[in-house]
Amino acid sequence: MYTAKHMKWWGWGGEEVRFNSSAHPGLWPYAKAVLGVEEDVDTPPVPIEAVQLREAIRLDGFLSELRLWMRADQICGSRHERLVHAYGKGFRDLFRMRRGIAEGAPDLVVYPENEHHVLMTIRVATHHDVAVIPFGGGSNIAGCLERTETRRMVVSLDMRRMRRVLAVDTESCTARIEAGVFGPDLEEQLQGYGLTLGHFPDSFLHSTLGGWIATRSAGMQSDKYGKIEDMVIALRMVTPAGVLATRIVPKSSNGIDVNHLCIGSEGTLGVITEATMRVHIQPELRRTHGYLFRDFEAGIEAMHECVRKECVPSMMRLNDPDKTALSLAFKPPSSRLTQAVSGVMKGFLRLKRFDLTRACLMLTTFEGSKADVSRKHSQVSAIYRRFGAVDLGPGSGKSFEATKYDFPHIRDFLLDRGISSDVSETSTVWSNLVPLYRATTTALRAAILDGESGVKPWVGCHISHTYHSGASLYLTFACRQQRGREMQQYLHAKRAVQQSFIDHGATVSHHHAVGTEHLPWLTDDISPVGVMALAAIKGGLDPGNVMNPGRLRPSTAPFEEWSRTGSDAMRPCLLRVR
Amino acid sequence: MYTAKHMKWWGWGGEEVRFNSSAHPGLWPYAKAVLGVEEDVDTPPVPIEAVQLREAIRLDGFLSELRLWMRADQICGSRHERLVHAYGKGFRDLFRMRRGIAEGAPDLVVYPENEHHVLMTIRVATHHDVAVIPFGGGSNIAGCLERTETRRMVVSLDMRRMRRVLAVDTESCTARIEAGVFGPDLEEQLQGYGLTLGHFPDSFLHSTLGGWIATRSAGMQSDKYGKIEDMVIALRMVTPAGVLATRIVPKSSNGIDVNHLCIGSEGTLGVITEATMRVHIQPELRRTHGYLFRDFEAGIEAMHECVRKECVPSMMRLNDPDKTALSLAFKPPSSRLTQAVSGVMKGFLRLKRFDLTRACLMLTTFEGSKADVSRKHSQVSAIYRRFGAVDLGPGSGKSFEATKYDFPHIRDFLLDRGISSDVSETSTVWSNLVPLYRATTTALRAAILDGESGVKPWVGCHISHTYHSGASLYLTFACRQQRGREMQQYLHAKRAVQQSFIDHGATVSHHHAVGTEHLPWLTDDISPVGVMALAAIKGGLDPGNVMNPGRLRPSTAPFEEWSRTGSDAMRPCLLRVR
Repeated sequence: MYTAKHMKWWGWGGEEVRFNSSAHPGLWPYAKAVLGVEEDVDTPPVPIEAVQLREAIRLDGFLSELRLWMRADQICGSRHERLVHAYGKGFRDLFRMRRGIAEGAPDLVVYPENEHHVLMTIRVATHHDVAVIPFGGGSNIAGCLERTETRRMVVSLDMRRMRRVLAVDTESCTARIEAGVFGPDLEEQLQGYGLTLGHFPDSFLHSTLGGWIATRSAGMQSDKYGKIEDMVIALRMVTPAGVLATRIVPKSSNGIDVNHLCIGSEGTLGVITEATMRVHIQPELRRTHGYLFRDFEAGIEAMHECVRKECVPSMMRLNDPDKTALSLAFKPPSSRLTQAVSGVMKGFLRLKRFDLTRACLMLTTFEGSKADVSRKHSQVSAIYRRFGAVDLGPGSGKSFEATKYDFPHIRDFLLDRGISSDVSETSTVWSNLVPLYRATTTALRAAILDGESGVKPWVGCHISHTYHSGASLYLTFACRQQRGREMQQYLHAKRAVQQSFIDHGATVSHHHAVGTEHLPWLTDDISPVGVMALAAIKGGLDPGNVMNPGRLRPSTAPFEEWSRTGSDAMRPCLLRVR
Repeated sequence: MYTAKHMKWWGWGGEEVRFNSSAHPGLWPYAKAVLGVEEDVDTPPVPIEAVQLREAIRLDGFLSELRLWMRADQICGSRHERLVHAYGKGFRDLFRMRRGIAEGAPDLVVYPENEHHVLMTIRVATHHDVAVIPFGGGSNIAGCLERTETRRMVVSLDMRRMRRVLAVDTESCTARIEAGVFGPDLEEQLQGYGLTLGHFPDSFLHSTLGGWIATRSAGMQSDKYGKIEDMVIALRMVTPAGVLATRIVPKSSNGIDVNHLCIGSEGTLGVITEATMRVHIQPELRRTHGYLFRDFEAGIEAMHECVRKECVPSMMRLNDPDKTALSLAFKPPSSRLTQAVSGVMKGFLRLKRFDLTRACLMLTTFEGSKADVSRKHSQVSAIYRRFGAVDLGPGSGKSFEATKYDFPHIRDFLLDRGISSDVSETSTVWSNLVPLYRATTTALRAAILDGESGVKPWVGCHISHTYHSGASLYLTFACRQQRGREMQQYLHAKRAVQQSFIDHGATVSHHHAVGTEHLPWLTDDISPVGVMALAAIKGGLDPGNVMNPGRLRPSTAPFEEWSRTGSDAMRPCLLRVR
């Protein structure tokens, strides 16, 4: 049976994969310059033996009942299994893990191979008051995956063995798919039918269909294919109350849409076991071009104009000046020829009076038949040109395509060198995009600087998902760690950016989920009555609070809990007693 | 203050509007022929004085508290007010009302003018155990509006005075709108900004924004503008637990999407008081062409090909042969010139070997700039031609545009003449569309014929909403009434068609709601756990069961309750004791 590899216990990417920093020679010099790093420091993760793992809670009755339904290799309690299921891959997760703190680790990992296994696990767990945390690829960065309870036994339910495309309706372009399938595996199976889901999030290599649905994920080509919630036709979710199942129909008026009770439920109601998804015929051609805009505002205007003119390519990814500089620093070393071309281009841009410190890179992907791609390219380029853009051709596009899934490795690279970084993202309406961008980057820089000496903030931003009424806004931030204050630094910055989103009318997250990281702002986002409604559904389907406890349920003192990991002792690490 | 007129207490359209049957001289001869009517009968509604209206329940404490918050003209208990709020406009509603049975009537009608009025009404109602049924335009045909309880006092909350467009963000193309606004009023207000919502359901003249959202409505141009649920950016809903309010953001990953708890809630959780909607720049031009296909299957193939080629006009409305014949019979009398043209066209069609008994009319609307319309027209026409279609030009389109909101009048016209008719609609995936059509029309015809002598069934169908993965299917059925068995005839036919939808993988309704008419099939549609989830939300936000009781909550013996109106005595008319 095919099984996707686990990611490293301490970082991004498969256990066998090392980030090859020599392929990105410009990265570290750039980081040092912008972050004011004078002396290189070495802050590697602790060796695996040094990780502190508390003794697992093991309920014999639970285990023996579980063994009635599953083979021994489906029920794992090894140190390594517990470690790789301890956290997701957010800053807080990685920082703790690298320090050898694995208090988020479950007591047991279970690998169901069919829906009945899931059903029995949840049933037996309910009976024995065991908590269950659904686990896809473990790539979540909002704090959806660690245990939040210490008293009850906690099981991580790893869905990766449920990976089959069960049925394809090529006429209707729908596919019924098991939820544990990883991105590349899914696309490979669909390719056999000439189809694609069209969902390519940054985490594509390490995330699953079920995870995407449970967190309302967005892929890079969402402008063409939609967010994951737009692709779900029907689904099945195993809850403590039984299996919720919906019909394979394109649209309905059957009361409240119960698909939407499962989508975004972040594991709190049950485990999504399969979904029937809208799929598409594979495009003949996919081509990415880079464009350079004079400034961020011009790029935004151009994106908006494409939306207005209903001439939207399958991806527009606009970097602000700092993110543009990072992208250029991340480029693989160029050949002599490309260096020469780049030199000519620089001269041309100077001639056009481009201020290279303000210029913004926009990556744009065109898809379809050869004719479609060529037509779309010229239409979009014409719009971009009206906003002063220069077409850099497919070269920078190729470099983006080659490295697009590598970005998350940068964080590990920086963490190895005493640099903290994280991201926050949101969406807003077009009229609020620039004001939100300005206010938030200002607040974020100030928060990183706040009272500190010698810590230079780096804040970059990109916009990569557009809608009729607005767009996403994705912020990346980094700073040099102050020893002993790393977590406070992070919390201070993270709180500033999330608070700015809420203060300026935006939402807690556009596609990363609420988890524990964004929970303090959920009530502001969906109103107290919205939170009550979530609690009511939870109470109805999971009265025993078995499923992913602590999520989507803000406490009365949300920030107190939220900051707890930030204490100097870094204990008890966001643990909560039921 | 502008107030939209009420519809007739006994039928469709404003009280002052009479359906002008002389403008449709072909209608009655066609109906007589296809329904086997030999003798004209006259079955008018009873005079208004003859309508039996039970004495209203009036709780003095409730009324005096209500009067603290609202003026006398906002609180109405007159016979006429109670009658026009008694039912929606489904067959069961109209048939009872025309016979003078108004047991669905509320005890009181309240007209809030702002959100605070709504909040106080619900709060006071909760305190006094009074049921509240939100009322928009009263056009619902699924049984969403009548009282289902006889013991408690029931208030109809008529939203029509909350009709303002509160704010427009022209840059982001969003508009914040009070929920009680009617279609024409809304479009007129938006027109002032050069904008349109693009939502034109058949009920457009007589339905409201809040009603559309609460029932997951679809407009004629949904292929371009989406269903109403696709247009909602944010909303406010007053529930017994307080106001649920969401943020004006295009997309989010803030857990379960609470907008979708309000959308489709059919008044069971609260009253939608306002919504921020995605709006569009008004198209310069809108033009509808008629096309004739050899048969229904060819038309469906052509629609599907438009979807595949991503070349979808703003409306495609394909009639099956019977619906085509009805459409032609419904045409206004033609001038000599159009008669001559029509003669030439007939000759041409015969030359092309069109079998006119199998031919299908497809109405297609193009929108945009003059150039867009012309380009879209030629692209779509080219696709249609490949499936054997003949372009009838804009003439039949104009006739459709002129009469498109008049179709619902046909039912009253038929009811006056001893003919019953109703509709059922659903959606399914492309691969199931023709099988579902065949199975359902066959089952429906058989049900109408079933054991009866001399009753000829008429069943027509159209498809008017397409999606990547499938389309809607809209059935209209009619038959001659057998005196004393009218309701049984209806129930028998309605049950057959709905059962066929469920048996063949489709959904209870594509855009008419569940109400009481489709409730027996809800559990099949969304699964027992889905129904449990709805009950849980209801219990959390409305523990007193104040809001539209009896909806979205199937009973243990759903058909027993459902058929109750069908008893010969026609009492107690679907009343249920709490």
